[in-house]
Amino acid sequence: MIYLDNAATSLHKPPQVIDAVVEAMNTLGNSDRGMSNGSLKASRTLYEARVKIAELFGCPRPDHVIFTQNSTEALNIAINGTIVSGDHVISTDLEHNSVLRPLYRLETEADVELSFIPADSKGNLSLDSFEKSIKSNTKAIICNHASNLTGNVVNLSKIGTIARRHGLIFIVDASQTAGCIPINMEKVGADIICFTGHKGLMGPQGTGGMCIRQGIEIKPLKVGGTGVKSYSETQPKDYPTRLEAGTLNSHGIAGLSAAIEFIQSIGIDKISEKETRLMNHFYDGVKAIQGVEIYGDFLLPQRVAIVALNIHDYDSGAVSDQLSQKYSIATRPGAHCAPRMHKALGTESRGAVRFSFSWFNTDADIERAVQAVKEIAS
Amino acid sequence: MIYLDNAATSLHKPPQVIDAVVEAMNTLGNSDRGMSNGSLKASRTLYEARVKIAELFGCPRPDHVIFTQNSTEALNIAINGTIVSGDHVISTDLEHNSVLRPLYRLETEADVELSFIPADSKGNLSLDSFEKSIKSNTKAIICNHASNLTGNVVNLSKIGTIARRHGLIFIVDASQTAGCIPINMEKVGADIICFTGHKGLMGPQGTGGMCIRQGIEIKPLKVGGTGVKSYSETQPKDYPTRLEAGTLNSHGIAGLSAAIEFIQSIGIDKISEKETRLMNHFYDGVKAIQGVEIYGDFLLPQRVAIVALNIHDYDSGAVSDQLSQKYSIATRPGAHCAPRMHKALGTESRGAVRFSFSWFNTDADIERAVQAVKEIAS
Repeated sequence: MIYLDNAATSLHKPPQVIDAVVEAMNTLGNSDRGMSNGSLKASRTLYEARVKIAELFGCPRPDHVIFTQNSTEALNIAINGTIVSGDHVISTDLEHNSVLRPLYRLETEADVELSFIPADSKGNLSLDSFEKSIKSNTKAIICNHASNLTGNVVNLSKIGTIARRHGLIFIVDASQTAGCIPINMEKVGADIICFTGHKGLMGPQGTGGMCIRQGIEIKPLKVGGTGVKSYSETQPKDYPTRLEAGTLNSHGIAGLSAAIEFIQSIGIDKISEKETRLMNHFYDGVKAIQGVEIYGDFLLPQRVAIVALNIHDYDSGAVSDQLSQKYSIATRPGAHCAPRMHKALGTESRGAVRFSFSWFNTDADIERAVQAVKEIAS
Repeated sequence: MIYLDNAATSLHKPPQVIDAVVEAMNTLGNSDRGMSNGSLKASRTLYEARVKIAELFGCPRPDHVIFTQNSTEALNIAINGTIVSGDHVISTDLEHNSVLRPLYRLETEADVELSFIPADSKGNLSLDSFEKSIKSNTKAIICNHASNLTGNVVNLSKIGTIARRHGLIFIVDASQTAGCIPINMEKVGADIICFTGHKGLMGPQGTGGMCIRQGIEIKPLKVGGTGVKSYSETQPKDYPTRLEAGTLNSHGIAGLSAAIEFIQSIGIDKISEKETRLMNHFYDGVKAIQGVEIYGDFLLPQRVAIVALNIHDYDSGAVSDQLSQKYSIATRPGAHCAPRMHKALGTESRGAVRFSFSWFNTDADIERAVQAVKEIAS
């Protein structure tokens, strides 16, 4: 199988990641539960992972790195933990349902007002619109770092500057960019960065989290056992415990930690360069094929390695199935949990076929994929 | 290291569990995201795990098995998803903070009324008290299947009968019993069973879930991407998607599935028998040692394999540290996230040292632990 669905999950993990999970499953106890070797080793594993993640995202405090099951959970915590009834929130057409559905729910159930910055036909946002959308009750801007459909990367610094100027909380969904392009939360002015471990970070499923700027107060979504301050009737107020109830996925986090080490040993710039080259190789190969329509903006200074397309008027599901069954190429058709983006691109009814590339893909993979698109289109 | 902290997490996993995680990390895509081999394999892995879990807990519908990060998350979903402002809830002194803190929060923030069935000095509940505590606004009974401190098992059938008679939702915390003693949710009249994967079920950390009786409506805690019905602004209403936003921990769940297969191949009765024998071996060895005080009721017809004790007036942390450092025996001191239970036993100030046993412990482990307690006490 040629796996070109890395924007859904990176199937090929560095061998070090698998080794780290195996090692963890053989040796880790429960972190913060007593002082036996197994428990201490779990605590150290988690702390080391926090340090690496803090470094990766430019988060000054490792204890402000929170582990969650995935990006969706991080976004639910960030959104529900900061927005209250009567607030106004600015978000965008680029968002995934992991942002949209929590926001829509707050709109329905808690009288939260929403504004969405529209995307143009290339999938780009007008950055001026952010400032124009600010109202007296605006509390936060929640924005995707890159669309999971078009691969367009958003200029976070500009939005961060606007957020800072108006005292708004700036929440970034880095699900598609973490591990793929460098992010420094201080430089871009982000208050909360939400990420998942199993995509560009090449870690295990069941891992993800958030980096929080000091001073940002987030109400916990879940409360429960923490192994510390057990006689308090309320969740401890200090991060990370405040947002981490129950036993963490130390086994998966050990793998994530190894994945980040792998990424840092290569350098994100180099990973980005290779993935971009593979993406351009594919894009150049398919853009001139008659009947192929490609979405997104390939002239942007920064993109993640995604090419979404349709062929003639074929349904995206039918094309993706053919790619899988006839050519053994894994892609992702349909709506990609990005309903507003598809509406903006006019692809609501048939979706799109998304090809997404990783460090482990090769030029040979790309050539076979280009050939397959050619054959289906002809 | 002799690992006797299995009630916190079972450090020793069956080799099949680790093999299954490795296999999953090498082959699984993202479930319900397209129809490529990797994605389909992930979907099948999850479905097979649901079937096994449904069978394990006597849950008639595998699609009513929900995956969560841990038991704490399952309990937060169950409690916050069924209890609303003005409701009255009955719970007990046996509960873990994963139940207590969500309940206290609802009491403070949503005018929910709470009654706690007291535990006696042996750690037992008076079952008559449940019926006496019912009021006109009682919505649910939330009860631990076994105390994580004393190991006492609660007679769920009797409570389930009361819940059914009064039309109450019966939520069971099976964190300490899943995989250790048989549970059939229909037979005991439970509406929601919450479990964790990394304790008695011998699976990876980052796994857990809940089994829901058909007809029980639970509001989601998190909402987001589901891979299906992506154009709906609200979370799909059907289980399991309703409560499962974002990418699941398929890698961990593959391991949990293998763990359940391992448990079923031996038989829970046989596992229970061995663990009980190890517990009694330890109990018999330490009960007569001068200065040793043991908590819990060892005459109950059913217990999980836990012995909590104190030695003279020593602090539990000091004893546990000595066990770890001098004897290389891992135990868990302190409060065990069970504040009401410690209050009932009068051990609030110094906690207790908890020894907890698993299928992988041996009589030699027990003998060394008994010897260590003897030496510390003398």
